[in-house]
Amino acid sequence: MKKLMIINGPNINLLGKRETHIYGDVSFTDFFESIEKQYPSLILEHFQSNIEGELIDKLQEVGYNYDGIILNAAAYTHTSVGIGDAVKAIQTPVVEVHISNTFSREAFRHQSYISAHAKGVILGFGLQSYKLAIESFMD
Amino acid sequence: MKKLMIINGPNINLLGKRETHIYGDVSFTDFFESIEKQYPSLILEHFQSNIEGELIDKLQEVGYNYDGIILNAAAYTHTSVGIGDAVKAIQTPVVEVHISNTFSREAFRHQSYISAHAKGVILGFGLQSYKLAIESFMD
Amino acid sequence: MKKLMIINGPNINLLGKRETHIYGDVSFTDFFESIEKQYPSLILEHFQSNIEGELIDKLQEVGYNYDGIILNAAAYTHTSVGIGDAVKAIQTPVVEVHISNTFSREAFRHQSYISAHAKGVILGFGLQSYKLAIESFMD
Amino acid sequence: MKKLMIINGPNINLLGKRETHIYGDVSFTDFFESIEKQYPSLILEHFQSNIEGELIDKLQEVGYNYDGIILNAAAYTHTSVGIGDAVKAIQTPVVEVHISNTFSREAFRHQSYISAHAKGVILGFGLQSYKLAIESFMD
Amino acid sequence: MKKLMIINGPNINLLGKRETHIYGDVSFTDFFESIEKQYPSLILEHFQSNIEGELIDKLQEVGYNYDGIILNAAAYTHTSVGIGDAVKAIQTPVVEVHISNTFSREAFRHQSYISAHAKGVILGFGLQSYKLAIESFMD
Amino acid sequence: MKKLMIINGPNINLLGKRETHIYGDVSFTDFFESIEKQYPSLILEHFQSNIEGELIDKLQEVGYNYDGIILNAAAYTHTSVGIGDAVKAIQTPVVEVHISNTFSREAFRHQSYISAHAKGVILGFGLQSYKLAIESFMD
Amino acid sequence: MKKLMIINGPNINLLGKRETHIYGDVSFTDFFESIEKQYPSLILEHFQSNIEGELIDKLQEVGYNYDGIILNAAAYTHTSVGIGDAVKAIQTPVVEVHISNTFSREAFRHQSYISAHAKGVILGFGLQSYKLAIESFMD
Amino acid sequence: MKKLMIINGPNINLLGKRETHIYGDVSFTDFFESIEKQYPSLILEHFQSNIEGELIDKLQEVGYNYDGIILNAAAYTHTSVGIGDAVKAIQTPVVEVHISNTFSREAFRHQSYISAHAKGVILGFGLQSYKLAIESFMD
Amino acid sequence: MKKLMIINGPNINLLGKRETHIYGDVSFTDFFESIEKQYPSLILEHFQSNIEGELIDKLQEVGYNYDGIILNAAAYTHTSVGIGDAVKAIQTPVVEVHISNTFSREAFRHQSYISAHAKGVILGFGLQSYKLAIESFMD
Amino acid sequence: MKKLMIINGPNINLLGKRETHIYGDVSFTDFFESIEKQYPSLILEHFQSNIEGELIDKLQEVGYNYDGIILNAAAYTHTSVGIGDAVKAIQTPVVEVHISNTFSREAFRHQSYISAHAKGVILGFGLQSYKLAIESFMD
Amino acid sequence: MKKLMIINGPNINLLGKRETHIYGDVSFTDFFESIEKQYPSLILEHFQSNIEGELIDKLQEVGYNYDGIILNAAAYTHTSVGIGDAVKAIQTPVVEVHISNTFSREAFRHQSYISAHAKGVILGFGLQSYKLAIESFMD
Amino acid sequence: MKKLMIINGPNINLLGKRETHIYGDVSFTDFFESIEKQYPSLILEHFQSNIEGELIDKLQEVGYNYDGIILNAAAYTHTSVGIGDAVKAIQTPVVEVHISNTFSREAFRHQSYISAHAKGVILGFGLQSYKLAIESFMD
Repeated sequence: MKKLMIINGPNINLLGKRETHIYGDVSFTDFFESIEKQYPSLILEHFQSNIEGELIDKLQEVGYNYDGIILNAAAYTHTSVGIGDAVKAIQTPVVEVHISNTFSREAFRHQSYISAHAKGVILGFGLQSYKLAIESFMD
Repeated sequence: MKKLMIINGPNINLLGKRETHIYGDVSFTDFFESIEKQYPSLILEHFQSNIEGELIDKLQEVGYNYDGIILNAAAYTHTSVGIGDAVKAIQTPVVEVHISNTFSREAFRHQSYISAHAKGVILGFGLQSYKLAIESFMD
Repeated sequence: MKKLMIINGPNINLLGKRETHIYGDVSFTDFFESIEKQYPSLILEHFQSNIEGELIDKLQEVGYNYDGIILNAAAYTHTSVGIGDAVKAIQTPVVEVHISNTFSREAFRHQSYISAHAKGVILGFGLQSYKLAIESFMD
Repeated sequence: MKKLMIINGPNINLLGKRETHIYGDVSFTDFFESIEKQYPSLILEHFQSNIEGELIDKLQEVGYNYDGIILNAAAYTHTSVGIGDAVKAIQTPVVEVHISNTFSREAFRHQSYISAHAKGVILGFGLQSYKLAIESFMD
Repeated sequence: MKKLMIINGPNINLLGKRETHIYGDVSFTDFFESIEKQYPSLILEHFQSNIEGELIDKLQEVGYNYDGIILNAAAYTHTSVGIGDAVKAIQTPVVEVHISNTFSREAFRHQSYISAHAKGVILGFGLQSYKLAIESFMD
Repeated sequence: MKKLMIINGPNINLLGKRETHIYGDVSFTDFFESIEKQYPSLILEHFQSNIEGELIDKLQEVGYNYDGIILNAAAYTHTSVGIGDAVKAIQTPVVEVHISNTFSREAFRHQSYISAHAKGVILGFGLQSYKLAIESFMD
Repeated sequence: MKKLMIINGPNINLLGKRETHIYGDVSFTDFFESIEKQYPSLILEHFQSNIEGELIDKLQEVGYNYDGIILNAAAYTHTSVGIGDAVKAIQTPVVEVHISNTFSREAFRHQSYISAHAKGVILGFGLQSYKLAIESFMD
Repeated sequence: MKKLMIINGPNINLLGKRETHIYGDVSFTDFFESIEKQYPSLILEHFQSNIEGELIDKLQEVGYNYDGIILNAAAYTHTSVGIGDAVKAIQTPVVEVHISNTFSREAFRHQSYISAHAKGVILGFGLQSYKLAIESFMD
Repeated sequence: MKKLMIINGPNINLLGKRETHIYGDVSFTDFFESIEKQYPSLILEHFQSNIEGELIDKLQEVGYNYDGIILNAAAYTHTSVGIGDAVKAIQTPVVEVHISNTFSREAFRHQSYISAHAKGVILGFGLQSYKLAIESFMD
Repeated sequence: MKKLMIINGPNINLLGKRETHIYGDVSFTDFFESIEKQYPSLILEHFQSNIEGELIDKLQEVGYNYDGIILNAAAYTHTSVGIGDAVKAIQTPVVEVHISNTFSREAFRHQSYISAHAKGVILGFGLQSYKLAIESFMD
Repeated sequence: MKKLMIINGPNINLLGKRETHIYGDVSFTDFFESIEKQYPSLILEHFQSNIEGELIDKLQEVGYNYDGIILNAAAYTHTSVGIGDAVKAIQTPVVEVHISNTFSREAFRHQSYISAHAKGVILGFGLQSYKLAIESFMD
Repeated sequence: MKKLMIINGPNINLLGKRETHIYGDVSFTDFFESIEKQYPSLILEHFQSNIEGELIDKLQEVGYNYDGIILNAAAYTHTSVGIGDAVKAIQTPVVEVHISNTFSREAFRHQSYISAHAKGVILGFGLQSYKLAIESFMD
């Protein structure tokens, strides 16, 4: 059975609570439970932290023995050379995802230190972005 | 039945012929046949042109009566305000795809005039990018 | 009788169809008929294409025997060195027009490769921009 | 009867005196008299100052009770946030005009703090620019 | 008794008149009267001009004998080297204030030629910004 | 009673120890005690961390049930998209403060990812900046 | 016998007609006839289009069976990622030529999307540039 | 007898009063009297204003009947397109002077809108700069 | 005996594990043991963290009582104003080191927020960089 | 007989010695001898120096009495305003050549201070670039 | 008697020979003889070289025992950090001069590495610039 | 015995003479003698020139038969593509050194054309930088 880790960066833990008219009232935990049911043939895990270094720690921890990592580094996407370096250093392929379309937002969100080292990038589909990323590992 | 149109921009017609050690020896036509079989419940079409304005023509033509458009504008992605305007003007949602990871290539390929108006963006997965885009319309 | 050619660039053919709450429900063809009536002493023609090179072709074709050209190059305004070169090369004076106020839109629309070679620039007056351009040739 | 105010910025008072081989030997006062005769159905006024703040004063003074303002802010076009703010704050629509084609001159003349807040922009037609601006209010 | 001078730049005289749904219908004069009552132990004065040089004149005039200056240079904040030089040259400490949050507006409003020479900066609190500036002189 | 939280970023814990000829020998804790006495009608708390993510954690924790947050993100002001996102996401209004005048220091300190989302900004008044921020919540 | 294709971009078809005091009154067709006579041992062909995509079509068509391509992409040189991609993708070596010295003209003509993928670049020699390019294939 | 006008811009009137340890305690009026004595064969005048438009007014007034203008536009040097335009428009040659070495100060003082249109530039010699400018008209 | 602290930033803990064909198979711990033996007259310690704030914590902790700090902030070198501020605030001199030649890598690695405040910089010598840094404290 | 001078800049004297797998093992002297034989009807000379000023000296020396100069300024191409000024000042036409394709190398090699003043530019053909330059003088 | 050294940079030796319609037909040697006569109370010397390092050598040689240096570094003005460093290092004051108005020429001539370290700058007066520089040392 | 060459660029010959309160009163020759004694097992040589091309000459001369080069190119570090090219072309490894911390000085000193091709970089340690560079060759 394939083992996939979803890693979420800062403020993703506010999902379902913050600006619910935009993001809806589904928390990431609820969403995660729904996809666990949808993909019974996969071992799915998820991790969230607001601390850049803890995201690096987690990438290093799972980066040599999982089959795939789905990474939404959120705000750190645009500023963290360290996360980009970790993605490049580990062996497990990483798919970068974003809930919103970062390219229709502020200019500083158009740059990513992660993309160049990712297996692929999926963004703008809301929570569906995570599901498409899972699909990308099932081919 | 859902009707999806795949629109490919310049030089995509060389697929399977150009730099085969990188892109493989599968032409887009061959690939298209394989996905047609894989998604029998969908009406799939595809169109390719090296001419910017013909891509705009096609977007306008299908942009009011198809369920989805999958657009790989290739080189025009980075220079065509006109294609971006067309994507914004029409009603059918457009998913932007790229075969290669444009963010690990030259700096001028990091900019897209299309992304901001797209439903979502999928890139870097090789030909699988098209399949994930199809999946995004099936949810 | 003076002979004027109106040349419209990409997506202008969607006028009256696209975002009608903004642009109104008048197509360019309808508008053209109304100005033909308003200026019976002029020979007025119009041409539209989504293809950059066809706009250049048309500029070359009419650029030596018409009395004036009214050019709304739309999206190509901001990216086409080729149209700018054609405007500079031909003999008929060219007035650049835009329906919207390009300076209250995205930064990339603030640049024009045409303006420097135009007889004059008129923008932001909606369809009235075309009428003011016609007036500019009647003095 | 419609009431229109023409506001001219710095050095426009030298017209007809400075570089006459380029600008001709018609002063703005002379030109103004000729257009007054040409548009007997309009109340036309004009004002000139070399002082940025006096232009702002005048915009505020007429900006709530005239039907239109024709503004050639000349050199202040490119540097005055204050005039741009005034144009945005008042209620009378403002048409920005320039005698010369500012886009075929130095790069710093390509930027305008006024355009984004103007009803429209007309430039490059010599003194005819003012007449086209008057026409734009007669529609 | 401490003597404080409030100096307001261009268009601040429109307060209470311009865009009242945003700025409210209180003119600066009315607001000034209310704070005069609130701080009976202070001598408060205010001055407004749309003319850059008159603001410099006033800064020079009061810059050697008042206890504090509260300066809202408005649009000139972003373009006036001369006001910045005056603030630097005089002896009375100057507190820079803005009614709106200039950092959530256009990019050109993020630069100030005054800040570097000011005692401090207070912005974004509406008219309360002036009161906080007064407080800063009372400590 | 109003409840206000002061959040301090990296190196603020060195206050009173580092460069005392500039910053004085008062630690933040001592200063905090003095203002607690000065504002007996308020519940005041403070928190400091050198870790970016812990500042985000704290903003999320108090951002739905306090009356105000006073945030000196120090060095993270200029680099943390994540803190800016948190300030934007929560409901409690945030006032940004700085002890020094960041605009008279290095160019990279002139940019703030927080300002655009703050209720207001106060900077350059030394420790008094915190007191003015408290005042701003008392109006 | 070696087979060489000359491909000319937009507005080159005006040669001999446009600004003859600069470019002379020789059309490209006349010039082509003269070089055909000068190089009887070569098969020479030429193609011109104002349409970017037709230039790409032609590059693809001859790019696998000719011995050399001489490309003057004119205005598209500076804006066409698509032509650059085609030059890179095909097998026939491409020599980039320009009639004028693009480096003594506007700054936007100093950039070429083609040069990096060309066998070599020759520019500034007038029509002789084409002949030098032919020579480069004869060595 | 030659007639020369010295025109001084904003804050020059503070000379001898502001930062006297740097600029000395000589006011410009005192200095002017000393040079009047030193050059009895010349008619020397001087004018100072903090208002940009008054400097333009003065340039226009003397720009057709004096033999030379010595212009220290101070802070407006770096921001005034209007003064630059006036210098270009008038007939009397203008020598640009600065008391301090503007090139060893802030970057924004390295740009001048006047230099390109001046007969010459002299800067960094303190008040001696004015005397060298006078000499330049005596040759 | 001199007391030196080596502080390593993110991903340095992967040394000997990541890209061993480049970095070799020596972990930092092994390397540290070897230099401990080589410098018996020194007290050497080392610390690693992926968390930016923990590096700041450690700098503050040892910055007043050690004789020297050798800092390889790795990815944080290029993005951390906070670490730079800490280096500047503490009293112990800091030598910045890098294993690789950061100037032959991506452009964003050419900037360091630490260098300006460091006693010196040593980079590009592989693990030998640390030894040269130790030598620099022995003079 | 025509007299041509070839001037080579810094490090060209290493040809045939440096990176022979790229540049081949032919020294420039050997190459020069071969072209001397190939063009018996020309007087050919060559000069090399690593010193920028000696290249200027040579350009001045031959710039009034030779029929043509072929200049490969190598590294100085990108930094020497002085060589560019000399090329502009002299009377003999100068053809700029480069052995490698400078546009497929580092960005700083894309700028040339010489091109704008050269008769023409030839680059990327290896040593053949020199021969094409000679041909350009034989027409 | 005061001892002054005039140091001229590259291509100044062509004066009187190059573009004589612009620069006149007076060589620098002739001009130098005329000013020697005009200032009999001074010891004047001059030196010219096209070699950057020889200009540095000369600055070092005279920089501790002459009363003044007049430096026209010509093209090196804009590119030579080394000459700027020498001017800063020596003790003799240096006046920077230019014959032409460098600010009405190409943008790259607007920057000088020397100005910031010079006693003063004089430019645009033709050869008179040197005489004004001599005057500046006589006060 | 290992043979090392120290190459010093412009103005280093002023050491011990220029700004002695900063650099001390030790000349490089004196310093060199002291390190010769300190490293009796090495053959040490040194060379200085103010002429860029002579530094290139020396690099070429020793670049194939010495064991190491220690290069302080001083001002040329920041402007010389030619020295960078030489460092890249030769076989002997080059260590770049600087006496001062170039990163705490002007922005233009933060760029080096040499670093990318150097074995390593050592800067900011005063004259000790040279000794650390020697150590780097002894490992």
